[in-house]
Amino acid sequence: MGRIFKERTSIDEALQLFLESFSPLRRTEELSLEDCAGRVVAESVISGRDVPDYRRVAMDGYAVRASDTPGASPANPVLLQLSESVEEGTTVWVHTGSVLPEGADAVVMVEDTVTVGDMVEIRAQVHPGRSVGQVGEDIKKEDPVFEVGHLLRPCDAAVLASIGLDRVKVFQKPVVAVIPTGDELLSREKSGEVPPPGMVFETNGLMAALYVEKWGGTPISTGIVPDRPESIKEAIEANLGADMLILSGGTSVGKCDHTPELVESLGKLLVHGIAVNPGKPAALGVIGKTPVVCLPGNPVAGLLALYFFVRPGIRKLGSIPELPVVVLRKRLAAKISSKIGYVNFIQVVFEGDKVRPLTGKAEILSSVAKADGYVLVPEHIEGYEEGQEVDVFLIE
Amino acid sequence: MGRIFKERTSIDEALQLFLESFSPLRRTEELSLEDCAGRVVAESVISGRDVPDYRRVAMDGYAVRASDTPGASPANPVLLQLSESVEEGTTVWVHTGSVLPEGADAVVMVEDTVTVGDMVEIRAQVHPGRSVGQVGEDIKKEDPVFEVGHLLRPCDAAVLASIGLDRVKVFQKPVVAVIPTGDELLSREKSGEVPPPGMVFETNGLMAALYVEKWGGTPISTGIVPDRPESIKEAIEANLGADMLILSGGTSVGKCDHTPELVESLGKLLVHGIAVNPGKPAALGVIGKTPVVCLPGNPVAGLLALYFFVRPGIRKLGSIPELPVVVLRKRLAAKISSKIGYVNFIQVVFEGDKVRPLTGKAEILSSVAKADGYVLVPEHIEGYEEGQEVDVFLIE
Repeated sequence: MGRIFKERTSIDEALQLFLESFSPLRRTEELSLEDCAGRVVAESVISGRDVPDYRRVAMDGYAVRASDTPGASPANPVLLQLSESVEEGTTVWVHTGSVLPEGADAVVMVEDTVTVGDMVEIRAQVHPGRSVGQVGEDIKKEDPVFEVGHLLRPCDAAVLASIGLDRVKVFQKPVVAVIPTGDELLSREKSGEVPPPGMVFETNGLMAALYVEKWGGTPISTGIVPDRPESIKEAIEANLGADMLILSGGTSVGKCDHTPELVESLGKLLVHGIAVNPGKPAALGVIGKTPVVCLPGNPVAGLLALYFFVRPGIRKLGSIPELPVVVLRKRLAAKISSKIGYVNFIQVVFEGDKVRPLTGKAEILSSVAKADGYVLVPEHIEGYEEGQEVDVFLIE
Repeated sequence: MGRIFKERTSIDEALQLFLESFSPLRRTEELSLEDCAGRVVAESVISGRDVPDYRRVAMDGYAVRASDTPGASPANPVLLQLSESVEEGTTVWVHTGSVLPEGADAVVMVEDTVTVGDMVEIRAQVHPGRSVGQVGEDIKKEDPVFEVGHLLRPCDAAVLASIGLDRVKVFQKPVVAVIPTGDELLSREKSGEVPPPGMVFETNGLMAALYVEKWGGTPISTGIVPDRPESIKEAIEANLGADMLILSGGTSVGKCDHTPELVESLGKLLVHGIAVNPGKPAALGVIGKTPVVCLPGNPVAGLLALYFFVRPGIRKLGSIPELPVVVLRKRLAAKISSKIGYVNFIQVVFEGDKVRPLTGKAEILSSVAKADGYVLVPEHIEGYEEGQEVDVFLIE
């Protein structure tokens, strides 16, 4: 009755098999700079102009000919005539960012001057080019500005604006269809009602869709699909236009757990059973060119499959560069016991400078809500002692 | 001519003065769970029901009376009759998540059973409650689920769905008006045109708006405001309905740098001049109840003022909890020189395991685009040697 997991693939091996089974999308779109933050450059950006395209004053002060300031000092200032143009013996007030007047080749900063009537005491010698930004100092015409694959930050949008662009070509977001399966699932449209016995509100599809969005994909949510192979097959086929499928539920060995078999019949089942606890029954496959992640119905196991497979999957599809993961090095406020042969997922809360493992059932969704982060105990380790330092990942 | 900065307030002191000058908004709104990720709980959530509200099967397997399994083992299995209901001597197939049948008090997992015709060999003794989730095991009716101030993650949305909610009350996002000032600024609507001499495309307002959005605020952008006190005053007054004002440009000591004086005349100027390089001319104030940040026109100085003041300001206004900052501990691939008396902002790029300080002018926007992160050298330190370990903050 039902199939028993014979193999348990390690997380790393499963991820490698999964990522090798599909290619980045590379579909592009053009966006206005207002909308480009967090997106990935799809076509290298070359500057069409010099920035600045004029000699730019870099300090508030007086534009001068450097040759007018030899030996100038507080004790021995040079007197220049305040004027409308810079010639020998004259100076013009300038402020940061303005055009250096013709005839001038340097700026004496205001702190090194004293104004007396229409005369200015210059109290520092300056060399030609002092406090002047040259043409192209910031960016030269033809300079490469961003390479393909660069993740655009708000400051990068400002750089694009500075070279006179208003739009930028980026990779499209991967579209991820989220398909919750299960006869026991109740749509949130019925929230407020008391669910019939054995029925629960759908949670994992919602969670998956919100993580997809957070990680740079566009989720599309189907309705709840009943636990019948033909219904699930129909839902899969209706969504093969998406760039990734997430099937939630039905991955275990129960009578009603059809999704991995369906993936196998429609495409290729790469992995069924991961050596992580909880999370074991997750499955990975590919149908045509579309990667498929089967999340276990247990919400915490589902969460792990999202973290371990969906997040890197979206990154690969969308050509999104990997950012350093937030890992905090913390001491344990209590010991952790772990099951040999599995990577164990242990939820923790911050407690002053330390972290405390949550007791109670790890598979329960509300335990995740209480947790600030988690510790992964490797397969060959039985646990950690109180006071030991561990890597803590944030639950995002 | 112009005012010279007499005081330079430390970043920490400036931030404290700023944050003490205004209060969190605490305005609330109700959102659907689809839209709640990244938002902050504004009203504590108490569960109205038990989750599960039935005895939930926790493993695929056979529902039994525990008293039917004494001494059961692979060598000495107990035989039970497969049936429609659980009574003495009978068992029913159950899968994870389903209702435990009346009469049963435990589940034997499928791995510990063998089916022979309509008989099931039970090969493990179970105690009452084994592999059964009790009513309210996940969340009990009246349990507090989220406190005010909790930042909602996708997994938390799932918890809210599980207790039968479809909406949640969160704090409204702070509205931040971004006002770029400067006669030299050209609107991005003119992108593609060659700017007249001395004119540059507006970048800092765009950058500020995108950071505001990233940090959990709602930016509203005004048009470019000319460098005239009456125009800037008008723009400030027109935007005092916002929860924060960001004025960009005009904070230095030039003739045309009116913004700090205007803040002083309309409200209270708290700080003008910060001991950070670049970034010195930033100013902070409050007009009525509205905090005001004056960004220096230099884009890198402006970026620092955004990081140091606008980000924590939005957090306070929106009651957004602080997340651990990503700090990487890296060795320097080259030495850093720094100016005593200022916190120096040094941009770095990753280079293998190390970071290399960017040479060239730090005040140039394109240097930020090249940088992966930055190092802050404290005021009393002259620099760091090659090979020394430093804290690297990511440029986000």
